[in-house]
Amino acid sequence: MPVDLAAPDPASLHPVAGVRLGTAMAGVRKAGRRDLVVMAFDAGAAVAGVFTQNRFSAAPVQVCREHLARAKGIRALVVNTGNANAGTGADGLARARRSCRALAAQLGIAAEQVLPFSTGVIMETLPVERIEAALPAALAALAPDGWALAAEGIMTTDTVPKAASRRLEIGGRTVTVTGISKGAGMIRPNMATMLGFVATDAVLAPALVQPLLCEAAERSFNRITIDGDTSTNDSFVLVATRRAGHAEITALDSAEGRVLAEAVGAVAEQLAQAIVRDGEGATKFITVRVEGGANVDECRRVAYAIAHSPLVKTAFFASDPNLGRILAAVGYAGIDDLDQGLIDLFLDDVHVVARGGRRPEYQEADGQRVMKQSEITIRVCLNRGAHAALVWTCDLSHEYVSINADYRS
Amino acid sequence: MPVDLAAPDPASLHPVAGVRLGTAMAGVRKAGRRDLVVMAFDAGAAVAGVFTQNRFSAAPVQVCREHLARAKGIRALVVNTGNANAGTGADGLARARRSCRALAAQLGIAAEQVLPFSTGVIMETLPVERIEAALPAALAALAPDGWALAAEGIMTTDTVPKAASRRLEIGGRTVTVTGISKGAGMIRPNMATMLGFVATDAVLAPALVQPLLCEAAERSFNRITIDGDTSTNDSFVLVATRRAGHAEITALDSAEGRVLAEAVGAVAEQLAQAIVRDGEGATKFITVRVEGGANVDECRRVAYAIAHSPLVKTAFFASDPNLGRILAAVGYAGIDDLDQGLIDLFLDDVHVVARGGRRPEYQEADGQRVMKQSEITIRVCLNRGAHAALVWTCDLSHEYVSINADYRS
Repeated sequence: MPVDLAAPDPASLHPVAGVRLGTAMAGVRKAGRRDLVVMAFDAGAAVAGVFTQNRFSAAPVQVCREHLARAKGIRALVVNTGNANAGTGADGLARARRSCRALAAQLGIAAEQVLPFSTGVIMETLPVERIEAALPAALAALAPDGWALAAEGIMTTDTVPKAASRRLEIGGRTVTVTGISKGAGMIRPNMATMLGFVATDAVLAPALVQPLLCEAAERSFNRITIDGDTSTNDSFVLVATRRAGHAEITALDSAEGRVLAEAVGAVAEQLAQAIVRDGEGATKFITVRVEGGANVDECRRVAYAIAHSPLVKTAFFASDPNLGRILAAVGYAGIDDLDQGLIDLFLDDVHVVARGGRRPEYQEADGQRVMKQSEITIRVCLNRGAHAALVWTCDLSHEYVSINADYRS
Repeated sequence: MPVDLAAPDPASLHPVAGVRLGTAMAGVRKAGRRDLVVMAFDAGAAVAGVFTQNRFSAAPVQVCREHLARAKGIRALVVNTGNANAGTGADGLARARRSCRALAAQLGIAAEQVLPFSTGVIMETLPVERIEAALPAALAALAPDGWALAAEGIMTTDTVPKAASRRLEIGGRTVTVTGISKGAGMIRPNMATMLGFVATDAVLAPALVQPLLCEAAERSFNRITIDGDTSTNDSFVLVATRRAGHAEITALDSAEGRVLAEAVGAVAEQLAQAIVRDGEGATKFITVRVEGGANVDECRRVAYAIAHSPLVKTAFFASDPNLGRILAAVGYAGIDDLDQGLIDLFLDDVHVVARGGRRPEYQEADGQRVMKQSEITIRVCLNRGAHAALVWTCDLSHEYVSINADYRS
């Protein structure tokens, strides 16, 4: 049961001019499900991507990086679920390239103009021939309103499809930002087993697509963690089709640039939070905010130490205000000169710890009340500086173990 | 159910001349269990300790460090379970000191000659008055053969008491090394919620007790991880009572020094492995060996990334050879210039991955056969240098979640 997250209403997902999506059943891993998604962009679209920092990056991630570097103008994405094509060596690279060639041939473009994406089980051979066989059906289905089916098509252990969309006005024209994401486990900062695709028809200078993408990733997909496992396949792609008809945005710090960046960032944030809300076995959506650090890096380290602690996560699953576990995580986060006598801890509005010790006024009933909520904010004040950091995570439940112990069966 | 670990036969735990142990029921957290242990050493014993690197170190850890620094000759330990006296601020420090004063008064020694240890729930007030009230009973029970009861007395979520003992000969005299440990969760390298007490009657130069302790810790308690949570209370203490009657050992690299170091290290290793075998919810004992690294540090980082991955641990719980998860962990371990095309992976004797990809000869049935065992070695060859590292861990099961979700109830 995802936390406060429902499948999106397809009617709420506004088409983006210049983007068409098609899905098909390729039977990559299991028959009878839409496991292949193609996205096609009109000529003139500008595309940027950020990818996993895992050194065991999957074959499709390696091919994406190559194709983006060649800068021939990306015109299509081919996405399969069921198989990650990771840990597959030279053969895996050949298969990823073959999927690009097959799609390119049918669209009449170069293979370098296609980006491939795979998600699913690691270290198994990608049945690329099944993808090739299903491509005609996916292309026949290409349509501007294919977002909802595409969101379903990229799911793995996700329990609900994830999509977000909003409209804004720039220079008197309506601009659309629509995106989809997937991911529920193997989720950790700096990307996750997570795919995110966001498109806008805003007329953005092509050179600004990458910085806009990085800004959006920083406030969204790089702020989430479920189990601390950085995946081999994380990819987040932003497409600007430049079809909205307003004057070109040539600076992100212009008024129009900020309006667009806010909208793209908000869509990315919603897609990223949806991944945590649908985290494997999640029953709680937890915001970890660390304040008063000497720098942002140490705040992040403390936030991730809390967010990754199995003991903290199981306590939240149990709605048990065993909050000393949070202090222990603060203590091992790696701040060598941390003074525990300065630490404050809040659970939502409840002030639990002052000067490193439990406050005499703190009543366990107050902690218990907050712990029973489905959305909770943990706030730690280090009281040694002016910097802060934020991470979203979920709890660790029996269901997480079940899902990951049974995933391949 | 611990993995290949049974409660020790009390008769196998040889007394150490100059050491007496007594237990009592103090009712620290729950009534009716032996939760207080006192160890008393004859005058002339040399004592050393290593402690958690958690910056939220518990009050007793802080007091231990103070008392060892004063070097007045440690004569007694007071250990309680049920309450960790951590995250308790200045009041917690006062209570830890009070327990030392109480024991010192009854033994006729100085408070600085007592080391206090606490383990259990964090961030609750230590009921030191209950410890004071039970001290006379613990002192009345002091006896050289109290090791088995003491091993029981320090348990928290442990399912079996942990103790090890061996005898060796030095200079024609019989020398004994006997120790106990506890710990089952919140276990991570660089000590854990783990208490370890090892005593020997070897005549070791007092200045050599600390280096011998550090050497033993390095091959034992610093090589284990269960959930990656470094505790606030980890402590490992070595006592040399110097009563065995042989000529004093004045160098650890002498023949006699090596014999003693080997015995102390082996006892520590057995105690440390027992903690993993009794890891919360553990069903498998896993050795992670990383070879061929450019240095030991990167080998350790890879080994811990594997050992901490919830996805790897749940796959082992399920006996599912979903071994790509191991490759993913290798990839995010933080070696920036890692070449995935060099990696080999073995599961016991089964060669799974060569040159970063699944070997064509690898049959899942072979991986499955190994995964069903209760003891498994994961071996990763980085093939970029001559260094290696070893870590022991366990799997992640439903039972782990149950234990930690219900721990305080």
